[in-house]
Amino acid sequence: MRNIKLTIEYDGTNYSGWQSQEDEITVQETIERAIEISLGEKVRITGSGRTDAKVHALGQVANFYTNTTIPTYKIKYILNNILPEDISILDSEEVELTFHSRFSAKGKRYKYQIYNGKIGRPIYRNISYHVKHEIDIERMKEASKYLIGTYDFASFMSRKAVVHTTVRTIYNIEINKQEEFIEITIEGNNFLRNMVRIMVGTLVKIGTWKMNPEEMHKILLERNRCAAGPTAPPQGLFLEEVFYEY
Amino acid sequence: MRNIKLTIEYDGTNYSGWQSQEDEITVQETIERAIEISLGEKVRITGSGRTDAKVHALGQVANFYTNTTIPTYKIKYILNNILPEDISILDSEEVELTFHSRFSAKGKRYKYQIYNGKIGRPIYRNISYHVKHEIDIERMKEASKYLIGTYDFASFMSRKAVVHTTVRTIYNIEINKQEEFIEITIEGNNFLRNMVRIMVGTLVKIGTWKMNPEEMHKILLERNRCAAGPTAPPQGLFLEEVFYEY
Repeated sequence: MRNIKLTIEYDGTNYSGWQSQEDEITVQETIERAIEISLGEKVRITGSGRTDAKVHALGQVANFYTNTTIPTYKIKYILNNILPEDISILDSEEVELTFHSRFSAKGKRYKYQIYNGKIGRPIYRNISYHVKHEIDIERMKEASKYLIGTYDFASFMSRKAVVHTTVRTIYNIEINKQEEFIEITIEGNNFLRNMVRIMVGTLVKIGTWKMNPEEMHKILLERNRCAAGPTAPPQGLFLEEVFYEY
Repeated sequence: MRNIKLTIEYDGTNYSGWQSQEDEITVQETIERAIEISLGEKVRITGSGRTDAKVHALGQVANFYTNTTIPTYKIKYILNNILPEDISILDSEEVELTFHSRFSAKGKRYKYQIYNGKIGRPIYRNISYHVKHEIDIERMKEASKYLIGTYDFASFMSRKAVVHTTVRTIYNIEINKQEEFIEITIEGNNFLRNMVRIMVGTLVKIGTWKMNPEEMHKILLERNRCAAGPTAPPQGLFLEEVFYEY
């Protein structure tokens, strides 16, 4: 038996997120079907974590166990032949049997794209959040510093989620502007449900002068979802990379 | 009566091109309906030219005559409120009554995007042409020089088209590569049907060593569609700008 690690890009626009759900088309289920068709094995693949409906991935990771004799590097081509165009297996590698996409992960990097212009941009509508009010990224940068470190991020978690601990570590936040596009990159050891989207929603409130940068610190201390800003929409979010080594 | 010039961006993925056709959803028809709903006038808008199904525009231009008393700059906002997210009016301006989107145009710039990597990229699938074979852009650049100038471009016109003359002027072609994306920008006074796509299809043949750069000159002299390469797919093509002044 081999343990196969897949690196996956997908456009989440037409999916109800990563994780299999009844009566919904998900990325996980679509890949599992492609494996069944091509390798003839009904498998369960394990992702590094969920992504919500309409969220994209440039480097989602999943693994599964197989008895197939097909060479590992060929698995990506075989699956891509069957998968729809909005999901691609970028790489297929054999890993140790103990490798687990979620539990072995040491960290993740997300990217969030904002289009900051008066009029919505059709070409970017499914891959960015359109914010009409002018954003001052210096205010966002100032506020983002309060989020770096190990804290209880309960204020930045969807109320629907249930977890053992809401303590997480954020390693780095970068905010860059190129023409009318703002890109926010967030790296951390692990993320709570909707954490990046709530952080971005709060940063946008600060960037558009509806909150002050120092309020980010207060929000963090409150450990209450109501203290933070709104959840930014899913289509601007990309799971960029999952790290398995420090 | 006023003559209103619209500058339009659209994602052509879900449209049967620009020009109204029976039983097809087109960009022109969608904008005409939005004008009818918002201004209460049934108008015919004139575009700078057609774009094919799945082709995009970053700066298509169209004009129409109206008796509305709504201030011109507001027209874009009113139309955008009604239009679907894949069409945006970037600007609305009043122009002289003699202005005609097609006949007044002095030139156009198109951009064509290629993704040159082994595995298709889901995020870019509707906005680029996926070429798996490695492209040598130096060969493309060499070949593109033969196309600059005033020539009979009959070899680069769809056989379906009927025109008075196939003589056109190409002002400039630029080819740039950034990571695995190749961008070809072509500026000219006017374009024949499928001209950019046939030029790109031929350049790709040359870039992938299936034709030599000098053959571009021969193809031009033949004035026969069969001499040129295939028509590159529509989703990589963007009408970037229409010029009304030199």
